[in-house]
Amino acid sequence: MFIGVDLGGTNIAVGIVDDRCRLKLQKSKLTRRQRQPEAIIKDIIELISEVIKDYGITKEEIKAVGIGIPGLFNPDTGEVIQCVNLNWKDVQLKEPMEKAFGIPTFIDNDATLAGLAEYEAGAMKNKKSGVFITLGTGVGGGVIIDGKIHTGFNGVASEIGHMIVGENYYDCNCGRNGCLETFASSTALINYTKKLMKEEKKETIITKIIDENIDKLDGKVIFEAAFKEDEIANQAVDRMVKYLATGIVNIVSVIDPEIFVIGGGLSKAGEFLLDKIRREATKNKYYRTLSIGKIVLAELGNEAGIIGAAMLGKHCINM
Amino acid sequence: MFIGVDLGGTNIAVGIVDDRCRLKLQKSKLTRRQRQPEAIIKDIIELISEVIKDYGITKEEIKAVGIGIPGLFNPDTGEVIQCVNLNWKDVQLKEPMEKAFGIPTFIDNDATLAGLAEYEAGAMKNKKSGVFITLGTGVGGGVIIDGKIHTGFNGVASEIGHMIVGENYYDCNCGRNGCLETFASSTALINYTKKLMKEEKKETIITKIIDENIDKLDGKVIFEAAFKEDEIANQAVDRMVKYLATGIVNIVSVIDPEIFVIGGGLSKAGEFLLDKIRREATKNKYYRTLSIGKIVLAELGNEAGIIGAAMLGKHCINM
Repeated sequence: MFIGVDLGGTNIAVGIVDDRCRLKLQKSKLTRRQRQPEAIIKDIIELISEVIKDYGITKEEIKAVGIGIPGLFNPDTGEVIQCVNLNWKDVQLKEPMEKAFGIPTFIDNDATLAGLAEYEAGAMKNKKSGVFITLGTGVGGGVIIDGKIHTGFNGVASEIGHMIVGENYYDCNCGRNGCLETFASSTALINYTKKLMKEEKKETIITKIIDENIDKLDGKVIFEAAFKEDEIANQAVDRMVKYLATGIVNIVSVIDPEIFVIGGGLSKAGEFLLDKIRREATKNKYYRTLSIGKIVLAELGNEAGIIGAAMLGKHCINM
Repeated sequence: MFIGVDLGGTNIAVGIVDDRCRLKLQKSKLTRRQRQPEAIIKDIIELISEVIKDYGITKEEIKAVGIGIPGLFNPDTGEVIQCVNLNWKDVQLKEPMEKAFGIPTFIDNDATLAGLAEYEAGAMKNKKSGVFITLGTGVGGGVIIDGKIHTGFNGVASEIGHMIVGENYYDCNCGRNGCLETFASSTALINYTKKLMKEEKKETIITKIIDENIDKLDGKVIFEAAFKEDEIANQAVDRMVKYLATGIVNIVSVIDPEIFVIGGGLSKAGEFLLDKIRREATKNKYYRTLSIGKIVLAELGNEAGIIGAAMLGKHCINM
């Protein structure tokens, strides 16, 4: 058995996963990210103790703990380098976890681990190479090459949200301009829709859907309006898709994977979004006649984070 | 012994390379690319016969023939998919080669093979992962992951010249806008320098170096002027470097290799260029405090093409 921890900006979710990627039991609580890292780490430890107890096993039956974090981890030091959403910087995470349970603990980026879950048990199963792209508050990635997650020499691979794909009207949190994340995240989509609603002075059904309360504007609303052929919504979605397709074709130009898997909140727009992405990516191939990797939706839902984290543990102890 | 063939837009170069990457003998002739593919293939076959004869061995001693082409190859069909510079499209190359000598023949992109040569005997030696970037008429790439050249699922990986890194004032040959090649190739550098000379109305020593003959303008001249602190030349070089650094950091965001190796004609500008690239890439990291791969100059010169092609043969028959 393995423990998988999905540490998010909103929730901490912990689960027990068996050798065959099946999530057996899951518990979660609010992250309350304004707290100190120590308080959050204490909650993770408590949740792990609870799932072990509730599932009725001993901690000796747990082979490894895996943790997905919304940021970057340094395996050499055991420290979380940075999690912008949690306001963490240089936080020791591996040590307190291993001290608490005496179980080997492994940590990696959450999008990378969701990619690993899709590889082990979802849309990338039996593929040799693939890239998982998560479209949420930010844009994250998980690169699988030859059946292994690829974190790179300095641990900063799979950070495809920070690939520069054009010039944008606002800067990225990372301080640069043109990052994929500023075009293709839900934050970017909402931001650009607001801009259009203000500047274009066109009728849009969005106003009605959100009861004229702009705070209610989210990715779901925009896709609902786009699906109903609303002009403003489609303009915003098409711009998002254009740059996402550029990002996909850029990835092709480096590693040309067998498959792209689209996950995260915006992927709930399903085939409507996927069709647009496929059309735009096909239009943007640099060699028009050649094939590029298949583009599909993620198969695992929210539990991808826990399963991927657990599978990280499995991969690491088997290495 | 292995035969390496470097099929370029200007020259066909053929050499004999031993198991330890040493080029023993080399012959070349002009490609005369306006000719039919059959005539060029005939020349390759003749050159191979000549080097075998001149080196005084029999063809039975040759274990494999490797050919680097300035374009894309489909290993499933044995056909060259496209070589824009040679005006080749769907040309069968493997079959006539194997028919002529009865020796297994392997073909790949020339920049990819130059990268393989740097991995086997040059700047990437003993590195686990690296990306070779050639700055010539176009921009090519060779991606090495886990000690293997990475050509991707559809054979279009390592085509980093077609990674989109911004918006440009002219389109790429591939029909799109913003490809790295349109910013960082010698063609792009020359093109932009001409534009500046026309529009900026500034004094520049370039005019003197080229005897007021704009046809003499090339990468070497521009770097010579930039080194002498000419404003126009530095403006052009800095723009080129800015986008090249964006391309490098984009590659980091996908695969984060251990090393980047800069080759091709423009790399003759040496440390002057390298310093600028390193400075700009460091400035452009998305996580400021983190390391990115080393950036160095290619160690092999023109012979990288032949050596890499020969090593392709070695890799393939050992697989």
